Amino acid sequence: VIISDARVAPLHGRPLARRLRRAGLATRLVTFPAGERYKTRRTKERIEDDLLRLEVGRDAAVLAVGGGVTGDLAGFVAATWQRGIPLVQVPTSLVAMVDAALGGKTAVNLPGGKNLVGSFHHPWGVYADMEALATLPEAPFREGLAEVVKTAAIADARLFEWLEGSLAPVRARRAATIETMVTRCIRIKRGIVERDPHEAGRRAVLNFGHTVAHALERVSGFRLSHGAAVAIGLCVEAGIACERTGFPSGHADRLERLLDLMGLPTRLPPTLDPRAIAAATRSDKKRRRGRARYALPVRLGSALPGHDPTVEVDDRELLRALAALRR
Amino acid sequence: VIISDARVAPLHGRPLARRLRRAGLATRLVTFPAGERYKTRRTKERIEDDLLRLEVGRDAAVLAVGGGVTGDLAGFVAATWQRGIPLVQVPTSLVAMVDAALGGKTAVNLPGGKNLVGSFHHPWGVYADMEALATLPEAPFREGLAEVVKTAAIADARLFEWLEGSLAPVRARRAATIETMVTRCIRIKRGIVERDPHEAGRRAVLNFGHTVAHALERVSGFRLSHGAAVAIGLCVEAGIACERTGFPSGHADRLERLLDLMGLPTRLPPTLDPRAIAAATRSDKKRRRGRARYALPVRLGSALPGHDPTVEVDDRELLRALAALRR
Repeated sequence: VIISDARVAPLHGRPLARRLRRAGLATRLVTFPAGERYKTRRTKERIEDDLLRLEVGRDAAVLAVGGGVTGDLAGFVAATWQRGIPLVQVPTSLVAMVDAALGGKTAVNLPGGKNLVGSFHHPWGVYADMEALATLPEAPFREGLAEVVKTAAIADARLFEWLEGSLAPVRARRAATIETMVTRCIRIKRGIVERDPHEAGRRAVLNFGHTVAHALERVSGFRLSHGAAVAIGLCVEAGIACERTGFPSGHADRLERLLDLMGLPTRLPPTLDPRAIAAATRSDKKRRRGRARYALPVRLGSALPGHDPTVEVDDRELLRALAALRR
Repeated sequence: VIISDARVAPLHGRPLARRLRRAGLATRLVTFPAGERYKTRRTKERIEDDLLRLEVGRDAAVLAVGGGVTGDLAGFVAATWQRGIPLVQVPTSLVAMVDAALGGKTAVNLPGGKNLVGSFHHPWGVYADMEALATLPEAPFREGLAEVVKTAAIADARLFEWLEGSLAPVRARRAATIETMVTRCIRIKRGIVERDPHEAGRRAVLNFGHTVAHALERVSGFRLSHGAAVAIGLCVEAGIACERTGFPSGHADRLERLLDLMGLPTRLPPTLDPRAIAAATRSDKKRRRGRARYALPVRLGSALPGHDPTVEVDDRELLRALAALRR
């Protein structure tokens, strides 16, 4: 069963279904409306109703063909259909290739917060076809770059420098450059995830920028895209890191400049209320005893060391970092 | 967070919450309406909305206090809340103690079939307090005996004989007798489940009687209780086993008599259409390529051997076994 959103289905879902049928596999295509606001329990129910109608049994597999939303949603369907059937991730967006399709995280959003209901369901395989990126519009491509920058910032100083020196070919999507970039990100994420498949500790390094990003998405009513929210979130959390981990302010400047040169936002939208953002961080999954946790770098390429790379941050510190991005 | 249905909450949920609070643990009680027909995606959503309102984070645990429905539903909530938080099963019914609370299966029903959406989420612990059985009404107690009989029939001939010889103290719920019975069932199930935690093969022996039972429940619109459906299902599938595995007809008679003496139904209700039952077996999770699978015994105390203890049964064989129970 191929699960795809209505935007990606004609581009990649349907062609793949045809090829699988020609190869002799019974293949069905199930679609849902495109967009983060459809990553809900309701959409999951509708897909399940389709699976029931198509009499999809335990001997089936789900192929999630699309971006991060599709991977999360179709992955969660696969995780719970008949208590779990195999899942193959076929990411077609940059953010899905370098981040969402790897690591087994699946989920839907609740009105009160992102990814609050979900499962760990590791894919049987991940197929990333670089040619799919050719159909990706400019905005989501740029947003994928935010996760690339995050990956480099927490784990690979050389990749960060390489990105600083490869801006033109990256933005022009030169095939060899993109393949190098995607492959390095996949290797880094796989290395982190394999050592901590259920995010018991160390893997939280991947959440750099994301405590604030999730709050920004919520407070904006999901009008701010995930990638844009991550770019701003990285800048806010880099500011916090300067205060808390000794992250050099020169590194924060380089991070901000790289995101800016990639066409990503690095300033807080004036319509978003800092106090609402602070309140929203407290429904983050990483919180403990009502306090939000932040995964912070100590310098470009290195996260906080140890089993638990997160720290608690209070409202005052967060509001100061947010105010700095209002300048 | 204690999750309990509205019937069990005042009997066991609230008292346990009080004890935990006295012990210094922040404890919340979340309730839902009692009954299999509330084991739905909708009820799960409402519980999740409560967890969100109560700001339940990843550092919480769920205690499922109640019968099989509560264990399945609250277990599934725990399995997917923030991608999984720890679960403690506190079974208060006989069926939950000897069967449902063990083995990590969690799920909700769909209009088209039982337990079609769920997860494996093994409990951190299972606490079965025999005193809870004192508050259990007669009908659900009897229904729990159906799973006890099933357990003996597939795995322990001596337990089966012991049950045949212990009818009076079992039905009188003599404390020592019940504790012996429950303990033996838990040991048997644990032994089977530990060797096959995700039901990849051998564990399917536990489904004896259940392919037909699930179909009976559905066709009756869930008016037939699970225990009553299992009792009838055991008789139907014993009849099939006589034809398919050489299960001695004398053993089928003993099985039927034991269930009957325990006050359980062993005849097909005349209102249920055999063809509808046959059709309903085909949406069973155990089916492959549209055909239902049956886990059958070869004699009392022994299931089919090998990694896969199930066989495919066609409509003709099933209808013959159903007709035999119409006499």
